Amino acid sequence: MDNRPIGIFDSGIGGLTVFKEIRELLPNEDLIYFGDTARVPYGSKSVQVIRKFSSEIATYLTLQNVKMLVVACNTASALALSTLKSETSLPVIGVIDPGVRAAIKFAGDGPVGVIGTRATIASGAYQDRISRLRCNLRFVARACPLLVPIVEENLMQSDIARMALEMYLSDFKKQQVSSLILACTHYPLLKSLINEFFEGKTVLIDSALETALEVREVLQARRINSDSTQSGHETFFVSDSPEAFSEIAADFLGRPVAGECFLHSWQNEI
Amino acid sequence: MDNRPIGIFDSGIGGLTVFKEIRELLPNEDLIYFGDTARVPYGSKSVQVIRKFSSEIATYLTLQNVKMLVVACNTASALALSTLKSETSLPVIGVIDPGVRAAIKFAGDGPVGVIGTRATIASGAYQDRISRLRCNLRFVARACPLLVPIVEENLMQSDIARMALEMYLSDFKKQQVSSLILACTHYPLLKSLINEFFEGKTVLIDSALETALEVREVLQARRINSDSTQSGHETFFVSDSPEAFSEIAADFLGRPVAGECFLHSWQNEI
Repeated sequence: MDNRPIGIFDSGIGGLTVFKEIRELLPNEDLIYFGDTARVPYGSKSVQVIRKFSSEIATYLTLQNVKMLVVACNTASALALSTLKSETSLPVIGVIDPGVRAAIKFAGDGPVGVIGTRATIASGAYQDRISRLRCNLRFVARACPLLVPIVEENLMQSDIARMALEMYLSDFKKQQVSSLILACTHYPLLKSLINEFFEGKTVLIDSALETALEVREVLQARRINSDSTQSGHETFFVSDSPEAFSEIAADFLGRPVAGECFLHSWQNEI
Repeated sequence: MDNRPIGIFDSGIGGLTVFKEIRELLPNEDLIYFGDTARVPYGSKSVQVIRKFSSEIATYLTLQNVKMLVVACNTASALALSTLKSETSLPVIGVIDPGVRAAIKFAGDGPVGVIGTRATIASGAYQDRISRLRCNLRFVARACPLLVPIVEENLMQSDIARMALEMYLSDFKKQQVSSLILACTHYPLLKSLINEFFEGKTVLIDSALETALEVREVLQARRINSDSTQSGHETFFVSDSPEAFSEIAADFLGRPVAGECFLHSWQNEI
């Protein structure tokens, strides 16, 4: 038993989709969430910067005495997971392996599709994992940089969103992709439109639930789950305005933020 | 006479449009450009964070011994200009005043329009300046967060871009805006499409040239222009990959980057 909190982080707010699934599956665990809202997004940045930022957050969460790190960000999972694992003795869980396992389960004869940020797709991390698990399975991957701003502009049901999907996903349709990994925490908010586009013929994989299941498994396997019978505490740290975060977070969580939300301002030495 | 370099900065790469105009107008001045590519964009962030980042860059450029600071970023000009002016004795020039003066020149009976990032529009900086110069002039302002990603996806001539302009600018057309300030360094790349949308009936103001003219004026008024007869040096600092920056910078400048490009990695204390 270990009653320390689970640390969860993302480049910004999207990781709350993972936070939400973990909360539902593990109601008694204390959770700490870090959103790097001052430096968001990561998806258009370099490997070096993504690793540096991820390590800084992991160090910060470790100082908060967490028992596990959950990288609730596809870009950081794709590019920084091995770096983080080499820097800590805590268990580190990313969103890629859970997503890939689910995609393969529904893949049939494939191909499997992956959409994500520029950095995630360029990293080849999803492609690597898929071919390691089923080496002959074909896959199609594409970066879709317009989808995050479309979600952030609340245009999930607009013609602009339809046109962007047409542009990004025609090739996936042509190749009759059997399962498609939504490899960015914002994309599940476009799920119904993507489903419409594929006429329900492609299984859409949202890694959030799969990741939460893996978190539970690892807690149990290592016997580090909490024995509390109370509702777990929730604490949030963000590097930009806690007020703005709390407001948008309520949309992601489907309820107001329950715990306290603090500002952690990075102190730069020049 | 003062042969020290002029310091120019932006949240990322867009400020190169200002850099380019300054270079053309002042071929003998040494120029230092700082692009904060690790923390870009600023336009969706809070006043506090935008001021903090801008001050850090201004301090860094001051250590490089510049004689003047040019804030080639609309968001930082809108939110951090007075902070920067209070922190230094160097002349500090932003992009807002030059843009507003030009817009008013072509305004006729107005109204004047302004489009920019969320932070720029929310700041009210353009609206303030316009009403200070011509208090009865009507203005229309709107944040257009999709336009930067559209430019970055190289979709300047696409139906998606047309649809986004329709969504953002219909109201400007209805109100028969006489001049429209493109208050974000990326927007001039959509100039031909915006012109098409307004059927050439609205004057589009791109602040880059106006800002360069103001830089020249201030140098002359303060007698701090360079007396060199050689082509000025160019040095670039970026907080993320210099290689990626140099590649995209060539598109903005219409020529390869002439000077050296260095990485300045912010060192964070936790």
